[in-house]
Amino acid sequence: MSVTTEELTREEVLATGTMKAFVMNGLGKVGFSDKPIPTAGPTDAVVKTTRALICTSDSHTVNGAIGPRENLTLGHEAVGVVYQVGSLVKNFKPGDRVLVGAITPDWFDEASQAGHSSQSNEALGGWKFANIKDGVFAEYFHVNQADANMAKIPDAVSDDAAVYCADMLSTGFLGAELSNIPIGGTVAVFALGPVGLMAVAGARLRGAGLIIGVDSVPHRQELARGYGADVIVDFSKVDPIEAILDLTNGKGVDSAIEALGSDITFQNAITVTKPGGTIANVGYHGKGDFLHVPRLGWGVGMSEKSIVNGLCPGGSLRMQRLLKVIENGRVDPTLMTTHTFPFGELNVAFDFMDKKLDGIVKPLIVF
Amino acid sequence: MSVTTEELTREEVLATGTMKAFVMNGLGKVGFSDKPIPTAGPTDAVVKTTRALICTSDSHTVNGAIGPRENLTLGHEAVGVVYQVGSLVKNFKPGDRVLVGAITPDWFDEASQAGHSSQSNEALGGWKFANIKDGVFAEYFHVNQADANMAKIPDAVSDDAAVYCADMLSTGFLGAELSNIPIGGTVAVFALGPVGLMAVAGARLRGAGLIIGVDSVPHRQELARGYGADVIVDFSKVDPIEAILDLTNGKGVDSAIEALGSDITFQNAITVTKPGGTIANVGYHGKGDFLHVPRLGWGVGMSEKSIVNGLCPGGSLRMQRLLKVIENGRVDPTLMTTHTFPFGELNVAFDFMDKKLDGIVKPLIVF
Amino acid sequence: MSVTTEELTREEVLATGTMKAFVMNGLGKVGFSDKPIPTAGPTDAVVKTTRALICTSDSHTVNGAIGPRENLTLGHEAVGVVYQVGSLVKNFKPGDRVLVGAITPDWFDEASQAGHSSQSNEALGGWKFANIKDGVFAEYFHVNQADANMAKIPDAVSDDAAVYCADMLSTGFLGAELSNIPIGGTVAVFALGPVGLMAVAGARLRGAGLIIGVDSVPHRQELARGYGADVIVDFSKVDPIEAILDLTNGKGVDSAIEALGSDITFQNAITVTKPGGTIANVGYHGKGDFLHVPRLGWGVGMSEKSIVNGLCPGGSLRMQRLLKVIENGRVDPTLMTTHTFPFGELNVAFDFMDKKLDGIVKPLIVF
Amino acid sequence: MSVTTEELTREEVLATGTMKAFVMNGLGKVGFSDKPIPTAGPTDAVVKTTRALICTSDSHTVNGAIGPRENLTLGHEAVGVVYQVGSLVKNFKPGDRVLVGAITPDWFDEASQAGHSSQSNEALGGWKFANIKDGVFAEYFHVNQADANMAKIPDAVSDDAAVYCADMLSTGFLGAELSNIPIGGTVAVFALGPVGLMAVAGARLRGAGLIIGVDSVPHRQELARGYGADVIVDFSKVDPIEAILDLTNGKGVDSAIEALGSDITFQNAITVTKPGGTIANVGYHGKGDFLHVPRLGWGVGMSEKSIVNGLCPGGSLRMQRLLKVIENGRVDPTLMTTHTFPFGELNVAFDFMDKKLDGIVKPLIVF
Repeated sequence: MSVTTEELTREEVLATGTMKAFVMNGLGKVGFSDKPIPTAGPTDAVVKTTRALICTSDSHTVNGAIGPRENLTLGHEAVGVVYQVGSLVKNFKPGDRVLVGAITPDWFDEASQAGHSSQSNEALGGWKFANIKDGVFAEYFHVNQADANMAKIPDAVSDDAAVYCADMLSTGFLGAELSNIPIGGTVAVFALGPVGLMAVAGARLRGAGLIIGVDSVPHRQELARGYGADVIVDFSKVDPIEAILDLTNGKGVDSAIEALGSDITFQNAITVTKPGGTIANVGYHGKGDFLHVPRLGWGVGMSEKSIVNGLCPGGSLRMQRLLKVIENGRVDPTLMTTHTFPFGELNVAFDFMDKKLDGIVKPLIVF
Repeated sequence: MSVTTEELTREEVLATGTMKAFVMNGLGKVGFSDKPIPTAGPTDAVVKTTRALICTSDSHTVNGAIGPRENLTLGHEAVGVVYQVGSLVKNFKPGDRVLVGAITPDWFDEASQAGHSSQSNEALGGWKFANIKDGVFAEYFHVNQADANMAKIPDAVSDDAAVYCADMLSTGFLGAELSNIPIGGTVAVFALGPVGLMAVAGARLRGAGLIIGVDSVPHRQELARGYGADVIVDFSKVDPIEAILDLTNGKGVDSAIEALGSDITFQNAITVTKPGGTIANVGYHGKGDFLHVPRLGWGVGMSEKSIVNGLCPGGSLRMQRLLKVIENGRVDPTLMTTHTFPFGELNVAFDFMDKKLDGIVKPLIVF
Repeated sequence: MSVTTEELTREEVLATGTMKAFVMNGLGKVGFSDKPIPTAGPTDAVVKTTRALICTSDSHTVNGAIGPRENLTLGHEAVGVVYQVGSLVKNFKPGDRVLVGAITPDWFDEASQAGHSSQSNEALGGWKFANIKDGVFAEYFHVNQADANMAKIPDAVSDDAAVYCADMLSTGFLGAELSNIPIGGTVAVFALGPVGLMAVAGARLRGAGLIIGVDSVPHRQELARGYGADVIVDFSKVDPIEAILDLTNGKGVDSAIEALGSDITFQNAITVTKPGGTIANVGYHGKGDFLHVPRLGWGVGMSEKSIVNGLCPGGSLRMQRLLKVIENGRVDPTLMTTHTFPFGELNVAFDFMDKKLDGIVKPLIVF
Repeated sequence: MSVTTEELTREEVLATGTMKAFVMNGLGKVGFSDKPIPTAGPTDAVVKTTRALICTSDSHTVNGAIGPRENLTLGHEAVGVVYQVGSLVKNFKPGDRVLVGAITPDWFDEASQAGHSSQSNEALGGWKFANIKDGVFAEYFHVNQADANMAKIPDAVSDDAAVYCADMLSTGFLGAELSNIPIGGTVAVFALGPVGLMAVAGARLRGAGLIIGVDSVPHRQELARGYGADVIVDFSKVDPIEAILDLTNGKGVDSAIEALGSDITFQNAITVTKPGGTIANVGYHGKGDFLHVPRLGWGVGMSEKSIVNGLCPGGSLRMQRLLKVIENGRVDPTLMTTHTFPFGELNVAFDFMDKKLDGIVKPLIVF
């Protein structure tokens, strides 16, 4: 590791150092824990956390979505300062302010070579934080293949904004990208949580001519309009299929984005898409044995409606591009920050998010 | 219409002419009927039939798949000789030997402009023969937008072979095209009827490195090997999912093609496809309210397995290219012709096909 | 033709009717001429002109770019009201307010079936107006395959804005589409005339993270900033290659758009694009035997820099989508209208455009 | 490094071991040299060479194409047996029989993340062997990022065949892939050296309906027919542009592949491609300041003819797929092996290749 004397000193501290982490301890249980500060292998880095965000999927994890976990540090959305780098890391040094993708692929794997890095090693294998290794809700966290999985944060971008790139922008924009929106095309976004909101912003970034947001929560509807939705369909008041067909002269949309992970919105997304259009699923489906494709809505299997999905893209290039979107004023994600908590109160923040208290959208955690 | 004296004479015949047609008369009923010879509008043509093929979907239609029909001429796979052309037709004249796609799109429609001509006017709207207008099981049949929907048959290609381009090659190859096969990639084709066989041939044409055919009928298995399948999985003897995973080192295939129209093969196709791979559905799904996507097999909606489908592409360009495939010896579809009947015995042929008698694969009808 | 009595009366007028047209009469000569009002064949329409725009390529044509022409009506950018429709036209009727693409393809042709409708029948064959048939600088003009080549103008969109869709938005946006811009990607647009300005707007619509406009004219630079350019490179003051490399940390841009039709900007576009990036040429190259690809700048033919080009897409679907872009406030093209002239002064307007007088960008012609 | 006792012993040998290498020593000079056996860093491997091929580009290098080099080991096409692996290598162990791509990308780099791994770090940066590090004409050679850049050779594939995957199959097939061949499409391949021959085989693998090979050497013409060319155009006897237009009814080909690296074939490839078609350049252009794009042949920059290029794809996935093509009998590259030499006579072999003596196509080097 090519570090300065200062860092070597840190290394010594590191040898015996411990840190505070917010962990899952079995289904439904969370709390703080003391853990050793991680160390970096030859291609890795360790980052000192400065900001993090809680994701709905953190709640899902604690509630059992990926099975039981013991003493697993939670969290996958964070930014920080490089603390240690491995001997083979070329592009970063201690002290660099960095963004780390929520998904940190193995770039050597065949899936990465095929353009599906989020599936490296196995299905969803790029998802390591708070899944197959400790997450980012800790004073320090470990980053595999650091040169490929981190990006320097430009001076003009705050940590408070940059942290949204790790997952929210990357996943939401992916919905827009996968749904193959033509310039001037029509898009329906199902569910306007943070991912859906960024799917709206992403649809705007891809040049959609009409963006229809589907949600029933007023504050989300308002945010969606701010991010570029032209029309809101409140499914608690009207039939969303009818409403969307009406808005498109009975033709259906070019592109539909499922940003919730529910079987019924998945079905509706297929039904309201025109023949030849694309349905992009970016919602995590946590329940049931099957998703249901409406046989007639899918044109008896011959309507040329493509159903695609994806997992939040990671990687230094993706992160750099998302930071550029913020740096040059295309999208301001901090409008979604409804609450801020210090790291020491992450348990409170987590409870707010789990129960969706006080109209919470995204809670920012300050370290 | 720029026709010669000889054709003008035909025209006169045409004014009062009648022809024999093989029609559906309500659910489950078929028979011969006398009908007027059709006439061509300005952009259309009328073709005198020389060869036709019966398709399994003709049986589906008679058994009610698209609802009741009265006195509807059946059939959508045919070749013949141009009998009459409309005043705006530029590229054809009476006497030309032509292939007509089973799907005859409206090339003015927006869906065609978007690259989805089979969906012109409405979902599956390019499918006109024996659906929204009389089909090709008649001595003459009508072709809309003739310049765009017919192709001249090269001298080196027989009618017996050319007729397979109308649907079998176009649909089977589409499965291979949609499934996004890389050179050297692995492919599984579910069901080895005529469409599945042409999907195998199509997979070979796209450069697949390993082609796995799934079927239990020995004669089909044999044909599949002839068309390029490297391995046959007989689902009546082994679990197809396990067998395919074994053949791919547990990774699954790059591409899966559903060529049957069954919910269970649809599910299996999804399950055996690797993350980042593509499932192409070209089977007609005639039953049930829903197709079922296995939640875990689809990676909880995040495994980047794309599910796409398509309806047999039509059009003069497509037909020309398929004829070239036959002309230059890439694929010989006549190996699928297990039976031949004169037009006058179409009722017998239809019964053979409906009941799948005598190991029938495709019956050729000679006019 | 399904017209009302009123229209039938118009038809009679039409039989003997004449109209005023602005024509080219040999190289370098223009003037007004009386011509018969055109009539519609079965699939066609005749449109009464309300607004038109002069294009730089009209000047090119008069100056000999496509060879000599006698009594050829000029102009290809116009909107109007349907005057007559042919017997097979389904979607339009006299009185409809319509936009007609500058390019009016033959949708039956193989090139259209292959997704290249602008190349129907021959290279650039979709370009008919003021090339192989009379253009739109007349009181009435003829539209081939009307259902496929016209779009109704929404009430919320003015003729003054809609007329920009015919060519400027379609061509400029095409530059952005062809150049394959990723969300957050970097783009350089060479030349900021009307097409370049719309390429800037198009790059913004596709989600570019950094848009660099290259031009030396202050008014154009200002317009470009308004349409979304983040940085302007004034090639009269700095070396554009150095400047663009500096702005991209020496890496070059993801996408470059050539919107002028000059060999030197073509070369620069290639040089400043990063390996793996795309150069989209939408400028008309009117001079020289060859364009020059810098051997080293193109990585000795192995740098994976794709060089693509395109001709303004036409068609009802394209036009509808462009109108949606205006209708929902994404882009306001009327900012480019620097001058307005009545049809009777088209000769004056033409002279302004030909000589680029008075800082003219686009002159609007009112009928 | 997880090695057995046997390997540890090898390691010790390795500490002081030397090996024989065939090197370039300044422009135009080659010869044998003694060098230390390389050692593997944490992610790397060292391979003991068993077979290699000489490439025309080795001659180019020696003749100065990439500038002067001192004591640089030549060669980039080889297979062998793993001798040593770094501590982080997961998928290989000493003794594995492996194929290594001629291009060994840095998979952490942004270009790799963007799908352009051959351009990692800089233009053509994936090309390391005999360019920026020692090549494979040595008893042992070093492989960076071994898990990502090597593939195990199946038992059914001989070293003699596998070695062709490193560059010849990968580059030739790339020509076919980049040129975007539709099933039944028409293709012209310019120059039928080993890369051109594999472009022909690749065109066949992608389903081309008509493959036209352009070359004047009888033995190459014969090989091309064997690999799937339907027609040969001998440019020494006929005008290749006229001949290709004649063969395609004056329309031109869908796809053209430049496999030589000459300005004139580059120009011809553009001219004979139909509007909307694709020209794929896989030839190395070693001379001149510019390649020339015919202005009219490129449709004044608006004919939608895409000009793309690429550098031999590397990576374990690519190599596995190419091996599958050989394993299942799709292509037999050993037909190109006209000569075989032991490693000790590489100087003789090199001279044969440099001077193209005795009808040499590819000389195989046996270690």
